[in-house]
Amino acid sequence: MKVLVAGGAGFIGSNLTEELLREGHQVVCIDNLSLGNTNNLSALMESPAFIFYEGDICDKNFLAHVFEKEKLDYVFHLAANSDIQASAKNPDVEYRNTYTTTYQILSCMREYGVKKIFFASTSAVYGDKPGELLDENTSRLEPVSYYGAAKLGREALISAFSYMNDLKALIFRFPNVIGPHLTHGVIFDFIKKLKSDPKNLEILGDGNQTKPYIYVEDSVKAILKFMDTDEEKKENVIFYNIGVNTATSVKRIADILCEEMGLANVRYHFTGGTGGWKGDVPRFLYCLDKVHNAGWCAENESDEAVRKTIQIILASKID
Amino acid sequence: MKVLVAGGAGFIGSNLTEELLREGHQVVCIDNLSLGNTNNLSALMESPAFIFYEGDICDKNFLAHVFEKEKLDYVFHLAANSDIQASAKNPDVEYRNTYTTTYQILSCMREYGVKKIFFASTSAVYGDKPGELLDENTSRLEPVSYYGAAKLGREALISAFSYMNDLKALIFRFPNVIGPHLTHGVIFDFIKKLKSDPKNLEILGDGNQTKPYIYVEDSVKAILKFMDTDEEKKENVIFYNIGVNTATSVKRIADILCEEMGLANVRYHFTGGTGGWKGDVPRFLYCLDKVHNAGWCAENESDEAVRKTIQIILASKID
Repeated sequence: MKVLVAGGAGFIGSNLTEELLREGHQVVCIDNLSLGNTNNLSALMESPAFIFYEGDICDKNFLAHVFEKEKLDYVFHLAANSDIQASAKNPDVEYRNTYTTTYQILSCMREYGVKKIFFASTSAVYGDKPGELLDENTSRLEPVSYYGAAKLGREALISAFSYMNDLKALIFRFPNVIGPHLTHGVIFDFIKKLKSDPKNLEILGDGNQTKPYIYVEDSVKAILKFMDTDEEKKENVIFYNIGVNTATSVKRIADILCEEMGLANVRYHFTGGTGGWKGDVPRFLYCLDKVHNAGWCAENESDEAVRKTIQIILASKID
Repeated sequence: MKVLVAGGAGFIGSNLTEELLREGHQVVCIDNLSLGNTNNLSALMESPAFIFYEGDICDKNFLAHVFEKEKLDYVFHLAANSDIQASAKNPDVEYRNTYTTTYQILSCMREYGVKKIFFASTSAVYGDKPGELLDENTSRLEPVSYYGAAKLGREALISAFSYMNDLKALIFRFPNVIGPHLTHGVIFDFIKKLKSDPKNLEILGDGNQTKPYIYVEDSVKAILKFMDTDEEKKENVIFYNIGVNTATSVKRIADILCEEMGLANVRYHFTGGTGGWKGDVPRFLYCLDKVHNAGWCAENESDEAVRKTIQIILASKID
């Protein structure tokens, strides 16, 4: 198949691109390199099955040109802001990079007759529902971050475009995804802090914010497993919560990091409060029955995903 | 209070503006006159409590200028596409006039510290759920029209902006609203057809599409009743289904219209199928318990709203 990976130079996108090429697909990648980086694709650039476009998905003419030229079978839409803290300060990032990219991609699919899309959504669409087990039928999705709001808006767009144009859509609501090519987040923040002061570590909140971390390899396996299983389904849009059964607290991340850096007796300084920053959902309970019953399960537990990611970052030259 | 009515020259907006002025508020109105018309406001233009800006809410600088200058207490956001059939052909209308207007308004509220918003949403956010009683906690909102998708995206934006900026928001999910200043829809279509051929009437679908029609005066009363009752509530965003207990079929609308036009023996020609056009939700069941328990109930039943609207349109000079 000839597929588009929108945001293919980014974190999940580049991991997915690698796997799609390995499975024998032709991959067309678009990325504006705002969060993505061509270094993530350097091993793939020479592949004859790989085409890279640097460009802005919000630019309708540019995007239409790619659709016109490439005759795509499937779209993997990974182009979005992924830095929730950044957009908390500037929601324009979500309006543009998350919502508008989706709108333009769906418009091109409608115009050029591309019938299948995978779309990365997020647990943030549920909002903050302490103590509630979140499954795909949970009602009152009331996001507390601009990030979650733009993602829910995208889900709504996909619902309507799918119905109106007979598209098949697969939507994964991911928790925190980590692993190779990660660009930001709590692990990076802690490494930076500990490199500058190996005796003290400031931790936002009370350190008990506890979330499931999924290893990117597991996420990519889930995408590939389900990309074609929608054929027999009646629904146009299929939603899955994707995650792991375990979760890791921020304090536990600090502990694992200190172990991996060989640091002992680091003093933790908590800024206090239950959440790290406004718009953060400090804890959530994810029901994974639907995806488990469909035959997928993550291979790495949350702590394991954190440790592997830390090892990769420490082994790389990133500061 | 000094309030903004965004889309104040439009159908619901102009009716609301009239009532707000009557209640002694100062009203600032913005409208780009795409669907709105200053004729709807002609009786109000001389009022010293009324200010009209012709302009585009998507134009950030223009909007910021109005917020900067007018020091608003409350925003009533009625600026949106209301012609679902039009946007089925061109979804850009929703992206721009429905989603982007909301994004820009919320951004200005954030910047200029305006803390309260009323927002007109729609039954279309629920999607097509035959036989299901739709209440405010119904899960899996999967719109089938671009119109419903943009409105659901707006609800998500309001949820996040409210949480992040401590705004209070009141969201009404309206069914079909009709009455004075209506600009389009099935009643207009039928009048046009019967004026050109009083013996035959083409009816889209099988004529059994049956929806609740609410009279605009009732909608406006509901807005005014609840605009300040959120003070004691814990939630930032309060949702209400707003509607009437009864519903009117498309065929019944044709019957009422023929009576009011004094036409007998009109032959109805049905195009067939259960829905009028793709993206239309032909029937839905609305649970109104929440708003009834809160003390509001529509005064006009659905058939009555249809008849009054027909009388007003026939008495006016509109073709």
